[in-house]
Amino acid sequence: MSIPNPLNKHASNPICIQPATTTSELQPFVDSLNSCPKTGLHNPIRNIDRYLMLGDVSRKAGEFLKSEEGEEYFARAIMQCMPKSHQQALGEVRVTANFLLNFSSDQVRFLARGFSVPGDHDGQESRGYRFPYGPVMIISPFNFPLEIPVLQLMGALFMGNKVCLKPAEKVGFVMELFLRLLHDCGLPKSDVDLLNSVGPVAGELLQRADVRVTQFTGSSTVGELLSEQTRGKVKIEDAGFDWKILGPDVGDTEYVAWQSDQDAYACTGQKCSAQSMLFAHDNWIESGVLDDIERIARDRKLEDLTVGPVLTHTTEDFLEHVEKVSSIPGAKVLFGGKELSDHNIPECYGAVEPTAVYVPLEEILKEGNFDVVCKEIFGPFQVVTSYGSSEISSVLECCERMSHHLTAAVVSNDPSFQQAVLGSTVNGTTYVGRRARTTGAPQNHWFGPAGDPRGAGIGSIEAIQMVWSCHREIIHDNKVQEGWTRPKCT
Amino acid sequence: MSIPNPLNKHASNPICIQPATTTSELQPFVDSLNSCPKTGLHNPIRNIDRYLMLGDVSRKAGEFLKSEEGEEYFARAIMQCMPKSHQQALGEVRVTANFLLNFSSDQVRFLARGFSVPGDHDGQESRGYRFPYGPVMIISPFNFPLEIPVLQLMGALFMGNKVCLKPAEKVGFVMELFLRLLHDCGLPKSDVDLLNSVGPVAGELLQRADVRVTQFTGSSTVGELLSEQTRGKVKIEDAGFDWKILGPDVGDTEYVAWQSDQDAYACTGQKCSAQSMLFAHDNWIESGVLDDIERIARDRKLEDLTVGPVLTHTTEDFLEHVEKVSSIPGAKVLFGGKELSDHNIPECYGAVEPTAVYVPLEEILKEGNFDVVCKEIFGPFQVVTSYGSSEISSVLECCERMSHHLTAAVVSNDPSFQQAVLGSTVNGTTYVGRRARTTGAPQNHWFGPAGDPRGAGIGSIEAIQMVWSCHREIIHDNKVQEGWTRPKCT
Amino acid sequence: MSIPNPLNKHASNPICIQPATTTSELQPFVDSLNSCPKTGLHNPIRNIDRYLMLGDVSRKAGEFLKSEEGEEYFARAIMQCMPKSHQQALGEVRVTANFLLNFSSDQVRFLARGFSVPGDHDGQESRGYRFPYGPVMIISPFNFPLEIPVLQLMGALFMGNKVCLKPAEKVGFVMELFLRLLHDCGLPKSDVDLLNSVGPVAGELLQRADVRVTQFTGSSTVGELLSEQTRGKVKIEDAGFDWKILGPDVGDTEYVAWQSDQDAYACTGQKCSAQSMLFAHDNWIESGVLDDIERIARDRKLEDLTVGPVLTHTTEDFLEHVEKVSSIPGAKVLFGGKELSDHNIPECYGAVEPTAVYVPLEEILKEGNFDVVCKEIFGPFQVVTSYGSSEISSVLECCERMSHHLTAAVVSNDPSFQQAVLGSTVNGTTYVGRRARTTGAPQNHWFGPAGDPRGAGIGSIEAIQMVWSCHREIIHDNKVQEGWTRPKCT
Amino acid sequence: MSIPNPLNKHASNPICIQPATTTSELQPFVDSLNSCPKTGLHNPIRNIDRYLMLGDVSRKAGEFLKSEEGEEYFARAIMQCMPKSHQQALGEVRVTANFLLNFSSDQVRFLARGFSVPGDHDGQESRGYRFPYGPVMIISPFNFPLEIPVLQLMGALFMGNKVCLKPAEKVGFVMELFLRLLHDCGLPKSDVDLLNSVGPVAGELLQRADVRVTQFTGSSTVGELLSEQTRGKVKIEDAGFDWKILGPDVGDTEYVAWQSDQDAYACTGQKCSAQSMLFAHDNWIESGVLDDIERIARDRKLEDLTVGPVLTHTTEDFLEHVEKVSSIPGAKVLFGGKELSDHNIPECYGAVEPTAVYVPLEEILKEGNFDVVCKEIFGPFQVVTSYGSSEISSVLECCERMSHHLTAAVVSNDPSFQQAVLGSTVNGTTYVGRRARTTGAPQNHWFGPAGDPRGAGIGSIEAIQMVWSCHREIIHDNKVQEGWTRPKCT
Repeated sequence: MSIPNPLNKHASNPICIQPATTTSELQPFVDSLNSCPKTGLHNPIRNIDRYLMLGDVSRKAGEFLKSEEGEEYFARAIMQCMPKSHQQALGEVRVTANFLLNFSSDQVRFLARGFSVPGDHDGQESRGYRFPYGPVMIISPFNFPLEIPVLQLMGALFMGNKVCLKPAEKVGFVMELFLRLLHDCGLPKSDVDLLNSVGPVAGELLQRADVRVTQFTGSSTVGELLSEQTRGKVKIEDAGFDWKILGPDVGDTEYVAWQSDQDAYACTGQKCSAQSMLFAHDNWIESGVLDDIERIARDRKLEDLTVGPVLTHTTEDFLEHVEKVSSIPGAKVLFGGKELSDHNIPECYGAVEPTAVYVPLEEILKEGNFDVVCKEIFGPFQVVTSYGSSEISSVLECCERMSHHLTAAVVSNDPSFQQAVLGSTVNGTTYVGRRARTTGAPQNHWFGPAGDPRGAGIGSIEAIQMVWSCHREIIHDNKVQEGWTRPKCT
Repeated sequence: MSIPNPLNKHASNPICIQPATTTSELQPFVDSLNSCPKTGLHNPIRNIDRYLMLGDVSRKAGEFLKSEEGEEYFARAIMQCMPKSHQQALGEVRVTANFLLNFSSDQVRFLARGFSVPGDHDGQESRGYRFPYGPVMIISPFNFPLEIPVLQLMGALFMGNKVCLKPAEKVGFVMELFLRLLHDCGLPKSDVDLLNSVGPVAGELLQRADVRVTQFTGSSTVGELLSEQTRGKVKIEDAGFDWKILGPDVGDTEYVAWQSDQDAYACTGQKCSAQSMLFAHDNWIESGVLDDIERIARDRKLEDLTVGPVLTHTTEDFLEHVEKVSSIPGAKVLFGGKELSDHNIPECYGAVEPTAVYVPLEEILKEGNFDVVCKEIFGPFQVVTSYGSSEISSVLECCERMSHHLTAAVVSNDPSFQQAVLGSTVNGTTYVGRRARTTGAPQNHWFGPAGDPRGAGIGSIEAIQMVWSCHREIIHDNKVQEGWTRPKCT
Repeated sequence: MSIPNPLNKHASNPICIQPATTTSELQPFVDSLNSCPKTGLHNPIRNIDRYLMLGDVSRKAGEFLKSEEGEEYFARAIMQCMPKSHQQALGEVRVTANFLLNFSSDQVRFLARGFSVPGDHDGQESRGYRFPYGPVMIISPFNFPLEIPVLQLMGALFMGNKVCLKPAEKVGFVMELFLRLLHDCGLPKSDVDLLNSVGPVAGELLQRADVRVTQFTGSSTVGELLSEQTRGKVKIEDAGFDWKILGPDVGDTEYVAWQSDQDAYACTGQKCSAQSMLFAHDNWIESGVLDDIERIARDRKLEDLTVGPVLTHTTEDFLEHVEKVSSIPGAKVLFGGKELSDHNIPECYGAVEPTAVYVPLEEILKEGNFDVVCKEIFGPFQVVTSYGSSEISSVLECCERMSHHLTAAVVSNDPSFQQAVLGSTVNGTTYVGRRARTTGAPQNHWFGPAGDPRGAGIGSIEAIQMVWSCHREIIHDNKVQEGWTRPKCT
Repeated sequence: MSIPNPLNKHASNPICIQPATTTSELQPFVDSLNSCPKTGLHNPIRNIDRYLMLGDVSRKAGEFLKSEEGEEYFARAIMQCMPKSHQQALGEVRVTANFLLNFSSDQVRFLARGFSVPGDHDGQESRGYRFPYGPVMIISPFNFPLEIPVLQLMGALFMGNKVCLKPAEKVGFVMELFLRLLHDCGLPKSDVDLLNSVGPVAGELLQRADVRVTQFTGSSTVGELLSEQTRGKVKIEDAGFDWKILGPDVGDTEYVAWQSDQDAYACTGQKCSAQSMLFAHDNWIESGVLDDIERIARDRKLEDLTVGPVLTHTTEDFLEHVEKVSSIPGAKVLFGGKELSDHNIPECYGAVEPTAVYVPLEEILKEGNFDVVCKEIFGPFQVVTSYGSSEISSVLECCERMSHHLTAAVVSNDPSFQQAVLGSTVNGTTYVGRRARTTGAPQNHWFGPAGDPRGAGIGSIEAIQMVWSCHREIIHDNKVQEGWTRPKCT
């Protein structure tokens, strides 16, 4: 499989050539998965020295990523296949490094912390444990070639699972590099299998091997398909049509405009947490926030990759969508809506300017328009609307009617306004306050959707425990009291 | 819908006549479910006074069930539609009462306990919350007409969900009585809808309403079907083919035999936690444990309902299965395997003696036999086998190959043996020690399967939080530091 | 010991006559305490059925207090010896009832929840437990004759301790009544000893019996004395000189004034959480908050006990202090500062109007004035001051220089202001927001001082675990790996 | 202050010359401590970026100690002032390294994790936080010159305290080296003051500065004195007279004997967790365990420091105590009881062979003997006794009568025996099972005494939170409901 250079259609060499495993080559993957019991490679009762081994591996890998050499090496690898600014690529590596270092030393075994409660009589005690699922699969996306697969992979390993990892084809070599690092740091080679293949091959593997859980990050279409195929044995972090509400209290206007630009357009809008819709209170409109955002967005340029290729929409598709949304009555393109000039991005990708389209709130809510306006475009595109103080319920109706609930931002320091919005929305990662943003998936707090029992979190202690382990309760009861006599059957 | 008397086919009256809602009558149920937002009837930010209201309701209902009058009233109701001994029926009511009283006063709001972690700079703090799913459905089984639906229902309500409850048709009137009690105790009538219908009507409802999670307790066949239909938006507590291992250390023989009889035959074996397979170490065989169990099981009789009708297998089906298993080479019926004498149980039900069939361990493991031997029979039936000290790995292979992992028992006080078994098995509720049992689903510890991401627990704090709420993280970030200047776009 | 009627010096009868145990009568108390081992009456490993017994006792006692008859009975008992309004007395009973019901059913054993962490090799696991101290003593104050001793007593019992309870002499008969209720609800009589005596007798007992922890609620003078005598084996909830800051954002003025009146004068100011000092931002002064408070305070009258006798200061002492504070340069009496008219309160008690004295902020901070101004007066007295936006650091300096840090209130909805105050103060129970108050010690959250390692909390799960139990870690390690050979000594 | 070479009285040079601060030089220490507010250098609301800074410092220091160069450097430093075998010194460094690495990255802020509970009405929420004490003092002992002060120091800093550290004079230079490392790793110099002085100077400092908590590790005599002087503002980890019980089930005899030798004599018995008393069941006596221990102990020799100087008892004192104990009726020296031959250890120290004295159980229990037998000797000395199955209550009586409860070991795999001992003893760190030991204070589990409210733990998350922070609850309550009207005063 040959991966074309996403920045230069004229480049003579692909960025890499890698295996493309076919269904006829799957048997070793099947056998490897099936070799792992349901109790995993380790659990709180068996092979517990592996917790310490993994703490050591995580620390060493983290130290390498934390070094200047290490972070630059992986940032360059990321940029080669998923063009983003150097700062964004570095950010990805640093979050990954911090995550790995969070699980140094004893911290992997602390993830397996259980609890105990006294029973009914002396000698009885119930104990709750976190058990692994055994053989599992991870299917990871292209936009964060390192961070997303590493955080899920390590979480899976920490809890005792054996992993078959299928990264997005376009960026798979980043994880190949990382796995080599893990092996150097002491990870046994049999802990993880890397599947370089197209999606359907992974689908076939899921049918043939007894995969206990599949963790998928990517589009909601594929997510629903996988859910059906596995009859729900999934943990999904899928599409986000993420919104930001600017509340009635205006302030720190340059900051808020800058953050909005970053949320909508950093990484060329290719983040599942990107700001897809902005609800600006009339006070903010009057303060000129839309002009501010436009002004800042105009600084973005291809040469430093503050805008870059869109990997899942062509330019044509993108512009067609802009056209569709902007033709709603009262709608208008605020800025962007054009192809980038002077670029060599291949035609299979998109090359477009950061774009914002204004649509009146009452039009968004109309049955025919809602699905068009709230369609996720994985690129530098946002819908903007405005509302007055009496229309907050319409804003909340919009939020409620959306189908996926990943990130959100409530830009307000007014506690009443905060509560009104927070109590009536359900996005899994919601930022609130003057500095609220939609993007930002650091390793120190939960990141993931809410409102769906199949939803997956990533990175935090809670996310790892929830996605990669299940509750098991073992009740010890070892002593028949003296003088016991047999009661009647019941 | 007319529910026949399960104990007397000649009875002139059904035990009750109840509505049988049809698909054409579903609209009010659809509308009611859809009236509840995804943020539920309450959540940690909105309508939080409901936590206290529910604490009050739970306490009052618990107090009634705890009263002599209350427990007898519901025990009688249970026995009428699901014949079990008075002691078993009382046990069901008592567990329910204890559960309800566990959530008195502030304890419902304590279920909604969240956490906070300092952020990166002053003014930032991440907070984790437990949010409800909104409109949900509960489909509950016939064997515990009160306990199972009440524990799931209250858990769902506590966390903020609105519930449509569909109990098994045969026993639905018990929950009708209980809902009336809840209303008397102050539960708003709009919190719960009761759907009296056959299964497919519930299936239709799931297609028409936006049900966020469906909690199902029942057969694995229906469980898988629901998983597919809802694409995994389920929490399932399904079939258990539960095993008990008697370890090498023999002692307290009368106790162990009595507990085995209870585990296999109490409630006529109609518990998802019933002992389906007994692995007895040769030392136990020599001590005569099988004779002891037989002796005790022979005390069971229809008149006091220590054996009763089997509601999901006919006598013929049951005996056919006994025949099939006992015809495996080396196998033999240890006791039972006959129809009850002198009974008036309707033909649509089963009327059989407590039965045990011995099958040699090496035969169980054979490809052709395994599925036959490990088929769950929801009645008074168990398979017995024996093993020597060198065969423990074959025993563990059996446990690993089974498909569902609900309860298990390891009857041994030897820590090495305990670890060997516990570290290589995954049953969600595993009892260990001389008093280990497979049945017993009290309100004070987790009860549920492990090893499946769709698995549901019941009753304990962890179970309620896991099944009925999801993680949401809200990151407060309210202060732009003085002197902030806009950095470059990335 | 004869307890005089606090409302009528002419009353012919005392409110009760009770035993006054002397040091020569202490031996049975010594023996009883010493009969309890350091491992308590129960702990997570021994006599664990007592957790359930206590859950039952707590529920039954709670149900009685929750009944109309029960709450009125105890409210009347309280009012007889500690005159407060009927509403305040009822409030005390209701908090107590809610607390007791919080520990129904399994909730006592849930307090003893432990944890487990995997060890270094298979067979090793460390387990944390909460162990009791064994024989303990509780010395409780007069102002909450029921709530304070009950919450501490039950917490002590729940965790496994045996208690000698010494209530304030003036109000001891309330706890005698309550202990009788507990006995009726099933508490073994040997669990608690009631010591009716003056303080020094209790001090003597502490020297003669091996009391492991003494929990004291009362004046800081006695607290420090006890700390020295027991060499720190204490848990103290002592005096509070509690403050409220009204921030720059004015609003809900009637609410804020009403809450200030309640905080300063409810229960005639005899709460350890009473508002002793009010810092009002100039904006609030301009809005007339001081007039509002005065207007509301003038409604208080002896006949409905919204003002009543002060039990620890005479009228003379009180007025002398008012004089002292108001003679500071710039200071003035805002209202009050007079003896009540038409009363029969005995001379040994105080009979004074709700009083507020204004002192300029810069005067408070002066070395000679600070201790006078910040002296706790356990009666209806508060100091008021004002500050401008540039003086917040002087306000915080005041808070820092105070010696005890129980409750505080920050009346502001401005997140920056909130953080500025909260990050620089340390009061253990701090209310923040427009509805902030200093009083309010409900059973649902922590109440207690912060900043002192000897500090005691009351009522909440965390408080009970922290005050009444200690950490014990038991590390199981049961398996010498095969092939182990002895290493060299080290 | 000149520190003599503990191995060679003829050495011409001391191991180091260091400052000996006098009371007249204390003012800078007073000022530095007093410069820190009660809210600490940081807390969950103020200066929260320090959590991340400290995570970084801890990681870097840990990485250095983890390196070959780093661990050898500090092992040599330890051995120079506190002679112990190279393996023991390395062990100390490794535990310290693992501890530091446990708090890499975000793990320091995770220590500050708080919680939230919904309040009574919308807009109210109670939040629990962990707050520092502010200025604190640590007084650390000589036997673990690195591990004990580092673990306590870092815990104190992590939670936000400012520390004045006073290490034992003889070993203070190890911490001087370590502080320099911390500074290199980024710790601000103003976070920690190092006080090189004799004890009384520290006592004076405690009187002059407002030290909020003093953490002391050392002798119980000094511990009690400090408790009195500070009126209980202490956290103490003092003397341990630690016992081991060999239960009735004999097995793994060589392992158990080896572990007993290590527990009693490693580090020349100078561990607060050293085995001071061995209760061997008659079955073990018959198996020859005492001969096994003697055989192993005889391998110890001065040249490799498997036995070394005793720093707090002279040879004479030690032998006098041996004489005293062995003169009890029925008692005898099992081995040792002699001065080392061919040594140059200074006379101010002890130079003795590993020693065991047998005393009959019934004699130990006698009033006059108990205090002699159970006196802690901080050197290579243990008391041995034996018991039969009917005498377990006498063994437990011994354990109960001891005054301090640090570590203990229950060498048995029998669950009934385990429960009998564990349920009736209270040692804070108790090992149980065939591999049970008394020594071993790794960073992964709690280490500290139980049964005393002043007791301090070390190293684990729970220990850090308990010793170095206090609970503070902040209740947000920001919204006056519309239509609120003022109720009557109460």
